Amino acid sequence: MLFFFSFFKNGSAQNHDLMPVPASIIYNEQPLKLDNQFRIFMNIEPGSRATKAVERFLRRLDNRTHLFISKSIQSEVIANDGSHLTIKYLRKAELKVGEDESYKLIVSGKNATLTATTDLGILHGLETILQLMEHDSSGYFIPGVTIDDKPRFPWRGLLIDVGRHFSPVDVIKRNIDGMAMVKMNVLHLHLSEDQGFRIESKVFPKLHELGSNGEYYTQIQVKEIIDYAAERGIRVVPEFDMPGHATSWMVGHPELASAPGPYVIEKKFGVFDPTMDPTKKSTYKFLEKFIGEMANLFPDEYFHIGGDENEGKQWDKNSEIQEFKKKNNLKNNHELQNYFNLKVQAIVKKNKKKMIGWDEILQPGLPSDVMIQSWRGTQGLKDAATKGHQVILSNGYYIDLSNPAWKHYMNDPLPADLGLTTEQEKFILGGEATMWAELVTPENIDSRIWPRTAAIAERLWSDREVNNIPDMYRRLDAASLELESVGLLHVRNQEMMLRRIVGNYDVHPLQIFVNTVEPLKDYNRGGQGIPYSTDLPLTRLPDIAFPESKTARDFRMLCEQRVRKRDISVAKEIKSYLELWISNHDSLVAVAQHVPALKNWVAMSVTLREISKVGLESLDYMNRPNVVTDEWTSTSHRILTDAKKPIDESEFAVLESITMLFQHALPK
Amino acid sequence: MLFFFSFFKNGSAQNHDLMPVPASIIYNEQPLKLDNQFRIFMNIEPGSRATKAVERFLRRLDNRTHLFISKSIQSEVIANDGSHLTIKYLRKAELKVGEDESYKLIVSGKNATLTATTDLGILHGLETILQLMEHDSSGYFIPGVTIDDKPRFPWRGLLIDVGRHFSPVDVIKRNIDGMAMVKMNVLHLHLSEDQGFRIESKVFPKLHELGSNGEYYTQIQVKEIIDYAAERGIRVVPEFDMPGHATSWMVGHPELASAPGPYVIEKKFGVFDPTMDPTKKSTYKFLEKFIGEMANLFPDEYFHIGGDENEGKQWDKNSEIQEFKKKNNLKNNHELQNYFNLKVQAIVKKNKKKMIGWDEILQPGLPSDVMIQSWRGTQGLKDAATKGHQVILSNGYYIDLSNPAWKHYMNDPLPADLGLTTEQEKFILGGEATMWAELVTPENIDSRIWPRTAAIAERLWSDREVNNIPDMYRRLDAASLELESVGLLHVRNQEMMLRRIVGNYDVHPLQIFVNTVEPLKDYNRGGQGIPYSTDLPLTRLPDIAFPESKTARDFRMLCEQRVRKRDISVAKEIKSYLELWISNHDSLVAVAQHVPALKNWVAMSVTLREISKVGLESLDYMNRPNVVTDEWTSTSHRILTDAKKPIDESEFAVLESITMLFQHALPK
Repeated sequence: MLFFFSFFKNGSAQNHDLMPVPASIIYNEQPLKLDNQFRIFMNIEPGSRATKAVERFLRRLDNRTHLFISKSIQSEVIANDGSHLTIKYLRKAELKVGEDESYKLIVSGKNATLTATTDLGILHGLETILQLMEHDSSGYFIPGVTIDDKPRFPWRGLLIDVGRHFSPVDVIKRNIDGMAMVKMNVLHLHLSEDQGFRIESKVFPKLHELGSNGEYYTQIQVKEIIDYAAERGIRVVPEFDMPGHATSWMVGHPELASAPGPYVIEKKFGVFDPTMDPTKKSTYKFLEKFIGEMANLFPDEYFHIGGDENEGKQWDKNSEIQEFKKKNNLKNNHELQNYFNLKVQAIVKKNKKKMIGWDEILQPGLPSDVMIQSWRGTQGLKDAATKGHQVILSNGYYIDLSNPAWKHYMNDPLPADLGLTTEQEKFILGGEATMWAELVTPENIDSRIWPRTAAIAERLWSDREVNNIPDMYRRLDAASLELESVGLLHVRNQEMMLRRIVGNYDVHPLQIFVNTVEPLKDYNRGGQGIPYSTDLPLTRLPDIAFPESKTARDFRMLCEQRVRKRDISVAKEIKSYLELWISNHDSLVAVAQHVPALKNWVAMSVTLREISKVGLESLDYMNRPNVVTDEWTSTSHRILTDAKKPIDESEFAVLESITMLFQHALPK
Repeated sequence: MLFFFSFFKNGSAQNHDLMPVPASIIYNEQPLKLDNQFRIFMNIEPGSRATKAVERFLRRLDNRTHLFISKSIQSEVIANDGSHLTIKYLRKAELKVGEDESYKLIVSGKNATLTATTDLGILHGLETILQLMEHDSSGYFIPGVTIDDKPRFPWRGLLIDVGRHFSPVDVIKRNIDGMAMVKMNVLHLHLSEDQGFRIESKVFPKLHELGSNGEYYTQIQVKEIIDYAAERGIRVVPEFDMPGHATSWMVGHPELASAPGPYVIEKKFGVFDPTMDPTKKSTYKFLEKFIGEMANLFPDEYFHIGGDENEGKQWDKNSEIQEFKKKNNLKNNHELQNYFNLKVQAIVKKNKKKMIGWDEILQPGLPSDVMIQSWRGTQGLKDAATKGHQVILSNGYYIDLSNPAWKHYMNDPLPADLGLTTEQEKFILGGEATMWAELVTPENIDSRIWPRTAAIAERLWSDREVNNIPDMYRRLDAASLELESVGLLHVRNQEMMLRRIVGNYDVHPLQIFVNTVEPLKDYNRGGQGIPYSTDLPLTRLPDIAFPESKTARDFRMLCEQRVRKRDISVAKEIKSYLELWISNHDSLVAVAQHVPALKNWVAMSVTLREISKVGLESLDYMNRPNVVTDEWTSTSHRILTDAKKPIDESEFAVLESITMLFQHALPK
């Protein structure tokens, strides 16, 4: 598939690095100069969310500029010759769907004002200022602007699956900081899975004690996460997947299952049989207590019960359940699951929570106050909204599948042609990026989430018409840097992971190589014969390579420019990439010959050298098509075709671009 | 000062990467081949310290080798064609001073055995195996060895000052992992300082609530740290500094002070006046409750009360205290502090703890069961041991002062010539590296602690005669890599901090530059006019530069080889360094012209270019001394002298080596 993002020409480019792009921005000629006289005026409430946000803001500003800006906030406007920012808001926000998150920022000479209805607007506005900051040889400044900003959707989430591989508190915290930076506002924790029950239950301690490998959040830690998120304007929504994806519940509580135990924690990945028994009263008694405990722990008004991928195999084999279905006139397992969902919803509702479930739960009879999270397609989203359910989109936002940011970016929860009434459209609350955790550890999870999730954050915040892909990528590169600065390890961990393999040998040839490849996309990694389980190391090539290589993207831009715009000026730069990849092979071999773990890398590097040679030749032949021979064409074609074959669950991210050069070199 | 570590020739080099060097190692010709048939046989107690350590060991082994080694441990020895490690120990260790930490490792063909009296020995032995692992083109293996190992000193500590700048739990945890890797066994937390009271007190909540900026450990978090450390065989010793360094106590409890309040949290660094009032009964009542609470929280048998740097200024100004001194026949403030110490020691002892204090507390009348931590010099150590006090050395292990590893390495707690009797020598328990936190944040603390602390760990574990400095550095480089792999950010954060300054401009010229400099050493950073406080950013050149540049060290080795060993073969490599630093200047300027924060860097880079030119010329003139002119000599001398002047609190780590080249080029 040769499908390039520069095909999209819809949106116009921005002349700033803001991500997400604000609703409205008007420039003026009066920048605010930053120096150590800069002051913030604000009605200080010590320890308030806004005050703490301003304190963090000042640190980040100073960390970048080294201006030694005062960290003390002035509680009232005082005469000041220097530049200053006045901050005002009317009230502390409630962390709930639809709360006012708007803000207005005016920068005009030495005065700047940031105003908002709630403190959430202030938090967002402060991030905007940090992204606005520029510098030239004379110093740091904020350009003169009037920004009126508010989100397009009220639900802008990131799901982190802590079930399959656990993410300790510090991983969650740094990702919350990343979310806040791009104005996301919902952290969805997928807390139970076949592979692990990841939260302490005081009511049923066997859940976490036997249902995990010791890796779970204590309730104190959960409160710590919720507080940390709330300080950053982010809600935390818990998910407990049921009736399927529930093996870990049954290790300590086999009585919940639809088949006799014993059960052990699942180590493999996939869809497994253990499923709660929806016919037993004891199941609901258990859930009543458990949901009561968790509803109390999580203050958010939404509560996710999963509900996905139940194949009903245990149900089919259990004669009592078959009996129950007949007796209750439940025609199939869908109806039985619907029966279960309604019972669970009653429990959730009794706890004053709104239930959410994956789109499988959208069955006839489901009360319209249940919210749907659509993972299977846009149809689920449309169906839910049509039936009057609140709904969020996750289909198209599966960041675990290593797709490029632009694909997620162009996936609009509410495209213009969806065919809903204005009333129905209101049910679409937004979306969530989903970090499913079959293939992530605390070491590489950041690079699977970031920076691509920032593009999704923008899709959910900014206007539908903001969709210029090259411009998005330009701003994404800037956002990526600031994400590192708030603590995410998505860039810096790559080199560490390479160093682990080669020790004190030179890591540079490996870096050059690894940035020409990407992990296999979609569900193709599973098909390469590796028996994935929670036991396997996630420190190999496809775990180290970025899901979307910036190198490959930069290279693609150049090749597009050469081929589609017939711009010959970029040929030199393209050539230098290709020559680097050719000459890098010997350097890689010099290291790899000592390191058994790099065996497959050498084989791939041979291929990289070959396709790079084809690229060089193609570049040359474009200028003199007469010299192209049939032999060269067929040999090169074979080389490029062979290079598609994945090795080590990785593929060449530069192959499409080189193929484009090749095709362009062929006589028309 | 031209003082090079290769002057030391004492110890012999090792032919392995072990750090610390074991007490005894004998090689055989029977390596153990690692493949995915490798198994561990052990009497499994699920959740036991040894079992968990083996599980981590297997992950780390697989993360490096990608062999897909089974993570399940075999509970009994079964017939096995593949290679295997049998682990046996007699009992679970108590975490106390002098507990048996020895182990014996035998690797011989496909059999390996690791045996120990306690599980601590097993933990140490597993780290040894990971460090032993080698690879060649045929695969990964453990060389055939018999290692008999045990520590020279029972107290091998790292102090982290969390008072001046706070270190969150995740920072502490990753440093605990680093300590375990190099067989350290005491984490000393300096929990209260003028700048912050860093632990929750339920008895006196104003201590942490008013005495900190909100950054402190909850008691739950303290337990989490203690448990995490204990799992890795590490004791946690708390320190509450008194009667001085105590401003933060008095913010909430001014009644403790020797002068009326109110008090605010100190932001600057240094020695401040606020001191507890040792004459009031209420002070001891307070301490009795507080120490009782903390003694209960920390299971270790030692309890540190600080006691350093009390200048007694508040005492001198307080007439009641003067009165009290007279009445009680206390001649001076030393005697008054001794009075205080004895009262405090009684409280500590009542709580069944042994008191530790800094060497100032060693005054006549101090009970001999008080342990001394010597920070001012070896004399304090000797005095304490002579008087029958247990004592540990920290003088010479001040890693906050940016000295090179070899200086710490050559600082023996018990040099052969100390002049103590064998009986007295036994009182010297070991030492502690001290990470004082005026100039560290979670971003750069790892690079201030590691890898240099690994050299101190070796000094405290290995024989006195293990002191070959170049060999230590060779092994330190290997240890540094593994430290990254267990989670420390000491290497990877440098590039991130540079990227923060330059954004998407090329970071490479900055990297080349920054690794030619080091932060000013000892207490010289304070003298450069920067008004340091907890408000100032620690993201500048001296915070980014490594305390000991590996580049500078590698360069120095080459220059030494050229000059002292008259080895001409290295001239080419020396030249390539110097040429790189010269050519780098233009690249640095190309970036820095856009970045105001880099102004001083440009000035320094000009100097770097100049001294590098002198280096190049010197290298050339060594071969033809006849061409050296007086003018060149005096100009070059001036350039090298001027280059000593620090800019931006940093100095050229390559200057001494270039000066050596210059001096060698001068006609004799």
